[in-house]
This record gives sequence, C-alpha cells and structure tokens, in this order.
Amino acid sequence: MRMSLVGALVFGVFLCAAEGALAGTDTTVTPPSHHPCLMLTPEGVATLRSNLGRAPLFDSVLEEAKANLEKALKEAPDVPVPKDASGPTQQRHSRNAGEMRVAGFLYQVTGDSRYATFVKERLELYASLYPSLGVHPASKDNSPGRLFWQPLNEANWLVDVSLAYDCIYDTLLPKERERYESNIFIPMVQFISEVHGKEFNIMHNHATWFVAAVGMAGYVMGDANIVKKALYGSKMDGKAGFFRQMEQLFSPDGYYCEGPYYARYALMPFFVFADVIENNQPELKVFERHGQILKKSLYALLQQTDPGGKFFPLNDAMKEMSMRNNSVIFPVNQTFVRYGNDPTLLSVAQTQGKVSLDPSGQAVAMALEASPHPPPFPYASVEYCDGPEGKSGGIGILRSGSGNDQSVAVMKYSSLGMGHGHYDKLALEYFDQGRELLTDYGSARFVNVEPKYGGRYLPENNSFAKQTIAHNTVTVDERSHYFAKYATALPLYSERGFFDAQDSEFQIMSATDTTAVPGVAMRRTVAMVCDKALDHPVLLDVFSLTSEKEHRYDYPFHFMGQFIQCNVKLSPHLAERHPLGTQDGYQHLWVEAEGQAEGSLSFTWLEGQRYYTITAAADPGTMVFLTRIGANDPEFNLRPEPALILRKQAGNHVFASAIEPHGLFDGDREYTCGSDSMIRNVSVIAASKEGTVVRITGEGKLDWTLMIANDPGVGIQHTVHANHESYTWTGNAKLLKK
Amino acid sequence: MRMSLVGALVFGVFLCAAEGALAGTDTTVTPPSHHPCLMLTPEGVATLRSNLGRAPLFDSVLEEAKANLEKALKEAPDVPVPKDASGPTQQRHSRNAGEMRVAGFLYQVTGDSRYATFVKERLELYASLYPSLGVHPASKDNSPGRLFWQPLNEANWLVDVSLAYDCIYDTLLPKERERYESNIFIPMVQFISEVHGKEFNIMHNHATWFVAAVGMAGYVMGDANIVKKALYGSKMDGKAGFFRQMEQLFSPDGYYCEGPYYARYALMPFFVFADVIENNQPELKVFERHGQILKKSLYALLQQTDPGGKFFPLNDAMKEMSMRNNSVIFPVNQTFVRYGNDPTLLSVAQTQGKVSLDPSGQAVAMALEASPHPPPFPYASVEYCDGPEGKSGGIGILRSGSGNDQSVAVMKYSSLGMGHGHYDKLALEYFDQGRELLTDYGSARFVNVEPKYGGRYLPENNSFAKQTIAHNTVTVDERSHYFAKYATALPLYSERGFFDAQDSEFQIMSATDTTAVPGVAMRRTVAMVCDKALDHPVLLDVFSLTSEKEHRYDYPFHFMGQFIQCNVKLSPHLAERHPLGTQDGYQHLWVEAEGQAEGSLSFTWLEGQRYYTITAAADPGTMVFLTRIGANDPEFNLRPEPALILRKQAGNHVFASAIEPHGLFDGDREYTCGSDSMIRNVSVIAASKEGTVVRITGEGKLDWTLMIANDPGVGIQHTVHANHESYTWTGNAKLLKK
Repeated sequence: MRMSLVGALVFGVFLCAAEGALAGTDTTVTPPSHHPCLMLTPEGVATLRSNLGRAPLFDSVLEEAKANLEKALKEAPDVPVPKDASGPTQQRHSRNAGEMRVAGFLYQVTGDSRYATFVKERLELYASLYPSLGVHPASKDNSPGRLFWQPLNEANWLVDVSLAYDCIYDTLLPKERERYESNIFIPMVQFISEVHGKEFNIMHNHATWFVAAVGMAGYVMGDANIVKKALYGSKMDGKAGFFRQMEQLFSPDGYYCEGPYYARYALMPFFVFADVIENNQPELKVFERHGQILKKSLYALLQQTDPGGKFFPLNDAMKEMSMRNNSVIFPVNQTFVRYGNDPTLLSVAQTQGKVSLDPSGQAVAMALEASPHPPPFPYASVEYCDGPEGKSGGIGILRSGSGNDQSVAVMKYSSLGMGHGHYDKLALEYFDQGRELLTDYGSARFVNVEPKYGGRYLPENNSFAKQTIAHNTVTVDERSHYFAKYATALPLYSERGFFDAQDSEFQIMSATDTTAVPGVAMRRTVAMVCDKALDHPVLLDVFSLTSEKEHRYDYPFHFMGQFIQCNVKLSPHLAERHPLGTQDGYQHLWVEAEGQAEGSLSFTWLEGQRYYTITAAADPGTMVFLTRIGANDPEFNLRPEPALILRKQAGNHVFASAIEPHGLFDGDREYTCGSDSMIRNVSVIAASKEGTVVRITGEGKLDWTLMIANDPGVGIQHTVHANHESYTWTGNAKLLKK
Repeated sequence: MRMSLVGALVFGVFLCAAEGALAGTDTTVTPPSHHPCLMLTPEGVATLRSNLGRAPLFDSVLEEAKANLEKALKEAPDVPVPKDASGPTQQRHSRNAGEMRVAGFLYQVTGDSRYATFVKERLELYASLYPSLGVHPASKDNSPGRLFWQPLNEANWLVDVSLAYDCIYDTLLPKERERYESNIFIPMVQFISEVHGKEFNIMHNHATWFVAAVGMAGYVMGDANIVKKALYGSKMDGKAGFFRQMEQLFSPDGYYCEGPYYARYALMPFFVFADVIENNQPELKVFERHGQILKKSLYALLQQTDPGGKFFPLNDAMKEMSMRNNSVIFPVNQTFVRYGNDPTLLSVAQTQGKVSLDPSGQAVAMALEASPHPPPFPYASVEYCDGPEGKSGGIGILRSGSGNDQSVAVMKYSSLGMGHGHYDKLALEYFDQGRELLTDYGSARFVNVEPKYGGRYLPENNSFAKQTIAHNTVTVDERSHYFAKYATALPLYSERGFFDAQDSEFQIMSATDTTAVPGVAMRRTVAMVCDKALDHPVLLDVFSLTSEKEHRYDYPFHFMGQFIQCNVKLSPHLAERHPLGTQDGYQHLWVEAEGQAEGSLSFTWLEGQRYYTITAAADPGTMVFLTRIGANDPEFNLRPEPALILRKQAGNHVFASAIEPHGLFDGDREYTCGSDSMIRNVSVIAASKEGTVVRITGEGKLDWTLMIANDPGVGIQHTVHANHESYTWTGNAKLLKK
C-alpha cells in the first residue's frame, strides 16, 4: 500500500504530550489574494515556465509525469466506495490523489485545460462520495478513517488534493468551490483535527501529516482559523501544532528521535508545510525557526547515511532504504533554495538522480546544469544529541577516508526512539568499502510484501530484531536491555561521555548507560585510529561493565562476510545444531561452533575486497560462540547471518577489541595479499575508578597504549597504576604509540 | 601465488594422449632477420611509437606500467635461490619475469636505456643462478620444477623472459647473448621439453604453456629445431605440439573442454604463441587453422558469461571471475586485430576497462577512441558441442532480453571436463537481472588465500562442490553421477538432443544421458517462453527419468534469494537440525524444513527487484525439503546457501516445472507489486515412448500445453494419447497456447 507523496505508511505508536508554548499566536491569515498559493505561486509558475527546457533533470521528471498522466487521462474517473485496507479501493484513492496533484501542477505549467478538467471531474465525485461515508469498513482500531482505513492516509490524501484544488481554483465557479469545500475540505479538516483531535495535537510524525493537511486546506480556502489550528494546535495556544512539533520531534541539532529511517518519512510533511507557510506568511519565518531546525534536520539525516547513501539501520529500518527515496528529494531541493544554495546538496541530488516536481526541484536542476561537477557532500565525524532539549543521550559517528573508501563507526546512546525503537544501548555499527561490516539487523519486515504477513512487521521483529542480542552491544544474563519492556525503556536514555574528532589520526567517542540493566553500569568507548603502519583505519572498542554481582556478559560481533580463520580451537556442531538460548532473541541463534579462548582472540573474515580481523582481549574463562540466525523461525523470515559472541562470567569486566581491515582480495585478478592482520594482541592492563588502560601490540613493533578516563573533561590529569607501572594522561583519552 | 602474464595457477590432472597428425612438418624456420621478433616487430614498434598519445586507454595502461616499473628501477636486482612454493622466493621470480617483460617493452617504445639495463642485470644473475639449480626444494610430486616448485611456472617465466630478451637483444654483445642462451634459455627449453617431455606432449592447458615457452625461446634464438618441437611435438610428427593442441582442446565450434573458468586461463598461451608464430612464419596461417579455431574459442568464451561479464560457473570455477580478468584482455585484443576488427569486441574492451600492452592493445584503444559507442557484444542463444570431434555432448545457452535485463538458461550435457569437472550431467543454471537465480555452487576454494588450505581446493570441493546434489540436476538414490569416480566419468558424456532457438518466443533445448546412473535414463528439456501475459520470460523444465527399477529421485533448485512463500505445509526444524544424508554431498545439507506436496507445488522467493516462483508438478507422494549448506563443515569453508529439493520414489518419473520471474520490489521506493505468480499449476499429462506432454495453467486463462518428442528430428509427426485426448505435433517440440 503506497501513499502518493509519501512513499510508505508508518505504523507507529506515539507519546510525548505537548508541553509549553513557545510560538506566539498573534499572526493573522488573510484570504489569499491569488491562486495558486500553496507550493506554487504566480511568480513561481512564471519562473517554472520561463525555465522549461533549461534544466534537463527537471525536464525529464516533468516529461515522465506527463507521460504517466497521459495514461490516466484516458481512463474514466474511478472513485469507489471504500472497502479494503490495502486492496484496490485504498490503492485507487491513493492513486487518485497523486494523479490529481500532478494534474494540477501540469495545468499550471502548461495551461492545458485537460488537466484542470481531470482534477475537477474527480473533485465532483469526491464531493458526492465523502459526505456519505461513515467509519471505514476495514478500520481495525479505535482510530478509524473514513476514506481510508486510518486517518494518516486521509491526511496524505488531503495534502495532495489541496495542492490540486489550489492549482485549478481559478478555473472554478464560486458555487463549485463552495460545493467542494463544504463537502470535502471542511468535513475532512474537521475529521482530522476534531474527531481525531487527540492525535492531531500529539508530537509524532503522524501528527505532522495531520497539521500539514489541515493547514494546507486552510490556506487554500483562506480560512484563518483552520490555519491557526494547524500552526498552534487545536486550542491555538502553541502547545501543539506545527511549530511545537518542530521543537519537540528534533533535537536542537536536528536528530530525529526515531532514527534516520523514520526521519526520512517524517521530513516530508515538515518541508511541504513549511514551503506553504513561507509562501503565505513569510513573516512567520518558518525556515528560520528554532535555530533553522529544518535545515539541521536535513543535514543530520544525510550525515546518517553510509557512502552509498543508505541510512544507518538504527531501530526499525529497512536496509534498502537510502537518500534516493522520494521523500528525501523534496527536502533536499527545498533546503537548497531556502538555505543559500549549498552546492554540496547538488551532489546529493546527483546521487538521487531526480528532482522534485516543483520550483525548488527546477532550481536544483538548473544549478546542476550550471555546475555539473558539484563538490561532494561533506561527510564528517559528528555527534548528535537526542531529545527536544538535547539531553537524552545521542548518537556518535566517526569517519575516516572519503567516497566509497570511507570507514564509518556509529554508536547509539540515544533514547529508545519511540515505538520503533530497539533495545540496544551502546550498540555499534561499522561500515567500510561502502559495505556493512558489523551490522545492525534492522527490522524483520518485508514492507508491502503481501505474502509476508501483509507487509507488516513480522513476529520476529519483536522476538529477534528488537532484542539486545541482535545488536553489537552487551547482553547481560541473556536478557535484553529493559527486559525489552517498552514502558520501562521509553523515558530512559544513555549518557553522552565525550566525542573528540579533532585529531583525524585518533578520533574517539564514549558513552555510558546505567538504565538498561539493573545493577550494571556500562561504558563503551570507540576510537578510530589511523597509522602509517596500517593500510586502513582501525577501530578500537573498549566496553566496560561494572556490577557488584556476577553476571553472564555476551559481547557479540554481527559480522558480514565469510569466515577465514580463528586462533581459538572451535568445536563445530557438525551434524546436529541447537539454539544458543530460549528467549530474548537467543532462541533464534543456531550455535555453529563453540570454544574457549586461551589468550588474545583473533578472528578473521573476508568481505568485498578486504579481510577484517577482530583481535580481542580474552582469557581462558572467555567462551567463544559462532552463531547463525535462523532457529525457531517457522516462516523463514530471518536472514541467516553469522555472529561471533564472546561470553564472560564476571562482575566487573572489560571487553577490549581492535577491528582491523587488511589486505586485498581481487576476484577478477585472483590476486590476494595481507590475509594476516598486523595487530596480534589486545590486553586490558587496568580498569580502575579513574579509567581504563588497554594495550595493543602487533607486527612491525606496533605497540599502542590506549588510556580512557571515566570522568571526561578537558585538561584533567589522570593516573592509573598497574603492574608496577603508572599510566598518566590529560583529558578524555590518549593513545600512546611506542 | 601469481603469474605475471597469467593471473593464477592451474592445478590440473590430466591426459588425453595425442593421436594422429594433421599438421605438416615441412615448414622451416630461419634465424630472425631482426629483433624484436616475437610479439613486437620493428614495424610494430614504429606504429606503437607513432600512435602514442592518440589512444587514451592504451596510454593510461602504458603510463601505469611506467609508474610501476619506476619503483622497480630503484630496487637492486633480487634473484634469490629458490626455496618456497608460494612464498617470497617464488613470488620474487614471478615478479622479476613480469617486470623484465614490461621493461623490455618499454625499452622498445621509449628507447630509454635504463629499461634495457634493468633486463640485462637480471639476465646476468639468472645466467649465474640457473645452471646451479637442481630439483626445487619445495616440489611435492614427481614433476618437480627447478626455479619454481612446478614446471608450469617455469614455462610462464620463460614466456615473459623470452619476450624481455627479444626486446633488448640488439643492445647485447654476442658473448652476452651466448652466455644467456647457454645458461638460461637452452637448459630451460631442455628441462621443459625433454625432462618433462611427457607433459610437453600431452593435450592440456599446462602443455600449451610449455610449447609456447619453448617455441618463443626457439624463435628468439633462431633455433628451428626448438620451434619445430613446439609446433609439432617432441617427435616433430604433428602428433603433439601447438597445432595438435589447437585441434584437441577445443570442440570444432570453440568450446574449451574444461569450461569457461579454465578456458579463460588456457586461451592466453594460445593467443600469445599464435601472435609470435604469425610474426615469424605467416605462411603457417596460424589464425586460419582448424577453421579459425582461435577466433571461435574467444567468442565461445565470451558467450559463456552472464550480462555482468562473469563466467558461467561450470565445473571448478570461482564465481568472481569475469571477462575483466587480465588473461582475457590480450585474446580479445588479438581477435580484434587478427579477425577483421569486429566492433562488438570494442564494447567487451570497454567492460574490461583495459587493453593489453602490445600493438593489438593499442589498436583496440585507437578504435575505441574513434568509435566510443561501439555496438554491444552480440549475446545469443547458442549451443556448443564438446570434444575434439564435437561428438561428446555439449552445452546449451538460451537467452532472451538484452543488457542486464537478460534471462539466461544454461544446460550442461558435455563430457566431464577433465580433472576440474563436476559430476552434474544435465545440470541447469539460470540468470536474470544480471544475477544468479538458480546457481551452480562453483568450486569450494579461496584462490591464493593462505589461511584457507594454502589457497588450494578445499576438502569440501570433493565432498560437496563436485557432487551431483550441489547442482540443479537429479541425484539418484543419494549417489552422485558415476559414483563421483573420475576414471569412470572421464570417457563418458551426455548426448545432445535438440536445440531450437529460431522462435524467440519459444526457445527450447533438450539433452539425454544414459551414462551417469546405471540403469537410469535421463532426458532434460528446458524451454524459454515469452508471452504477452507475462512481464518476463519463463523457464519450463521437464526432467524425465526412466528405469525398470524403483529409485529415489532428488530434484533440487539451488535458488539465490529470500524465501517468500510456499503452498506446501512445511514442518520446520525449529530447534534441532540434522543433515539430509551421510554421503555424496548430502552430509553438508542441513534440513531446515520438510513436507509433502498435495498437488502442484508453488514456491516463491525474492531476489534483487523481482520475485521468482517455481510451480512444479507434484503429487502427495512427492516429498519437499528446504535445505541449507553448512553441515559437517568443520572449517566453515562453505557458503550457507539454500535449496528446495523435490524427492520422488519411482521407476519412471517426470519432474516438470515452470520458473517464473514476476512483480517488482523496489527497496528505495518501498514499492512492490506482483508478489503472486501468474502460473498456478503444472502437471504432467503424459509420458510415453513417443514423448512427454506437460500442461501449464494460470491466471488470466493462461493455458499452455508443452509437447516434447523423445526422438528429435525436423518434420516428424508425433502423437501421444492421454485422458481420452490425443496430442499431435510435428518436430522436436511444440508449445500450444490456448
């Protein structure tokens, strides 16, 4: 089931009641002096027309839209009585809305009256149908739609149809406008903003669609009250509504609370409605609000992609999803025109291969034509805080290299991320060669694939994908963080430690959590180190656990690739296999082999053109498991991916590892070299209240000492004593290379 | 371990003694009137020089060669005493040879005496070293090398160094030449052609390197006897030697007996030595010989690639290997210049992204510069016969569509393919979207990856990859074809049936085998059908088995992708898994689920942007297994790939299936449609001595009847009676669409 402007539906639970009013309510909306007035204006149309043929990328999108609509023009209007939730009637109404929007746009650009007639014919039919509708027959929950099974789709529809109506407004007789407004727009606005007033006023991406739809209907009808409700909430007090959402759903630096996969979906209504507001009430300075939060949100979203443009699969996320998704194109184009024509966004547009069908899309295409070799998007090491105040943890991204040859490490220490959040505090993801190397499973779902549970989230999303063991972080006593309880996890978050990316040879980030496991404090520090003795950047990972009681700590590496070698003698389960455990995701992991470490563990796999070796501090008390996803999966919904798991029974414990890319494997040439790692040993020298000291040694006299302070802060001196030696450093961390 | 000119080593077992003499021995070789005389000639050098700067692709290869050699020029010569088989001394000698070859070439092109000195310094050292060498210390078998562990590498070295010597010949004093020839070239020729005379005279790709090396040394020294041995065998009677190899190792239409992966390696010495012969004895018309067999072999090799240029993984094959491999570049360039400048080869060169460092490489680059948009390589449906006489079965390739959107079906009914052959008579491979959909495992090996069994073939290559169950063909009674016995399988082959690709809507191929399983006759017929009711071509597969006794027939589909749905109620093995069997590869297959069919089976998976459904005739007596590779694999050498297996206990039986690509899955857009197949039922109507009749029905009144004759032949009428109906057709096969 697809939305026209949208891409895909979101099934989300929400929360986060509106608090406090920041925006004034003292502005006024006057009936528009002209139409179109939403995303198009008379000046915008004039510019569009005068630049036709000058912006090939835009022109091709326009031609494609014309060709698609030409087919629709040949069909009789079809406005069926709603029946199904994802079947033909739902799809039909969704398609009608999209086609009407495009037809309206084409009418403005070409003046061809066939397009206006196309929109009008359908408005007529909806004006007859809509008043006759009760609750949608396929609605399932206590929040039913009328034209669609859920009101979100109703809002999506209203956004599109308001745009279409706006474009042909001047071709209609007053009595026709009156008929459409009183039979479609006003009742639908009431339905969304009053019948569903509770959802309308919450802080959630669904509500952003709600306010955008209502506000756009308000502007096109010139109804100041409706617009005010959209901007400031039902009570018009600023405690809800669009401006409040701009403050609540993003952190001050633009991180969207659900993570990038859903941010991609949520940004669309923000940018669409902001465009409309700016065209109608420029005095509200929507694009300047909250410290230019819309700009920040777009850049934050783009930073949360791997070199191939795919979003980091934090929380519920489909791994195929990338910045090429339709819902990212318009925000990129808007950001380009609203915030000073940043040329690096043009290279994003090149990756997208498309522009939006509006003046900003044409502007981007014109700019690309003028500068066909724009500078690359400035991927950087960056930390984002989470929460409306920026005080609910965050995520850290370390990067080294450029283009596809970019190493990227991502650590998640944010809040849960609402209903699509996973229980994975301090989880690590790692990308190299434009590939996932240490992976987050993402969500267990085949979006829109009917035979796979109707395209909804699969049962294994809860039983596996959300559980802690599905992530590269420590599971304690085989139980997920917060015992995977939503209500427990929702208000809690990890704490930012430090994030130092100034030194490109030694970038480091650190975070802590004391909320996820009762009685266990966790601190993870991840460094990205470049060294001339090594061909590629190396990750150092130090995961400290402290607890008064003894626990079973499982520290997994969900690696992507083919096993090459391991220095631990592993007992393979050759002819009979069993799961690793019985609950919290463990029931889905086959044990392929197990063994016991005898000192520093070395584990090598091959992926793409490189080898990767994990060298981990370990002692004979450390159990080692090789697992593969797939047990207790009756419908074969899961991907059979492997993991290496280190298990240690302890109270206080430090897992310390180096993750090293090395060598070259070229299948075309059948050439390979460097299949052995340079790093050979990692050991924990000390772990005191003051800090942690880890030693990394290897070939070519490689001898590093990594010192990490527990209490971060600039200029503070730390000393740790161990083995008759003292280790002294100043500040958060130090890497001493001998 | 790598060869300079070569790419990779071949470890092959082999025989096939030379028989009969076809080539005359009445030609004479006179000492060359000039140097260089091998791959370069004075005219060739003049052309090369005059065209410098005009062929960017060649110029970039030249610049890269110069840059690489510049580093080597700064190093002192290193000619160590041989010690290891794949370690530093082996690599050093191999690298020396490659660098000397390039230096010689650069001397001719630039006239820079540093290059000539580079070659000379190393010849001096080899002239001291070589006479002192006995048997190589790391030689393992009864065919030891001297400078390298096996004589094949010695031949590779001699090819390169002969070329280098040729290029600087004119800069040397007679006494220097005498020293090099008597200490290096003559003893090495003797070693290869006399000490290893048996291998020199066999029909095998190693021997092609042997004769090329010896012949090139002979030409450069102007020694007619040596050249004659290379061309006509040690006895100079034409029963062995290069010309005999041209006749014996290829079928009359150019299929190389080991399959494309090894053909890629074998073609190199053929084309190198042919180039040298043509430059020295054009009267031998080497490129015209045996019906232009070299041209045919190159085109046959290119036809055996998927749309991405990867070779069909028949027999022992690495899946990464493609037409981009270095050893294919020179043959493509030579074919272009020697056989009339076929412009479609230029698009192959574009795919390769490189040209060879010789006049033909420059010619291709010049042509590409003149025609930067050459026509695509003419991929076609084509059958190749196997065996020197073309009477040892063959392979069939059906194609539909173009570019990446090309459906390709490959059936193997050839001879074994020598020591690298797999036991997989009538095996099927299927490609679509530029991907493997029904896959041959290829070989179990990580070429040159030291930690993986020294980069050699892994034990699982024998225990799994070569076994019948690893392929898409029928295994009888859980035993591989020929019981996987090399000596049994070697002389035997399947029989071609018919191959009709005239009708692009209904292409069909058929073959039989009575040699692989005692008492069981097999016939497989594969059709590729296009129909306007279907978005993509469909494969129809009819596999008939006849036997007086009852057997267990296993008919597998090794599919690539993610399971979506199956209409058979499968009992999954949720928390305990066991292998499917105990031998012949079965011990490596975990059973994930099993069930019993209840009529036509439907099985759908997702790969790339499409769904694929197998609809197979089945009855309640048909067992269904879902398996995954990985059991009894103590070193995790195998890839965990899935298969669907249909099992039937019967004497005579027909497995009939339709394999249908359908729908669209677009992860970027989160859009999908068509997850259900159009074909819904396949049933076997009749299987008589006359032929087989299969009915295929589906949505939209799709109703096809496929009739296949057992005795192929044009114009013959066939009638089969079943269920009170008679089915009549003329010729090999007919598809009746109602």
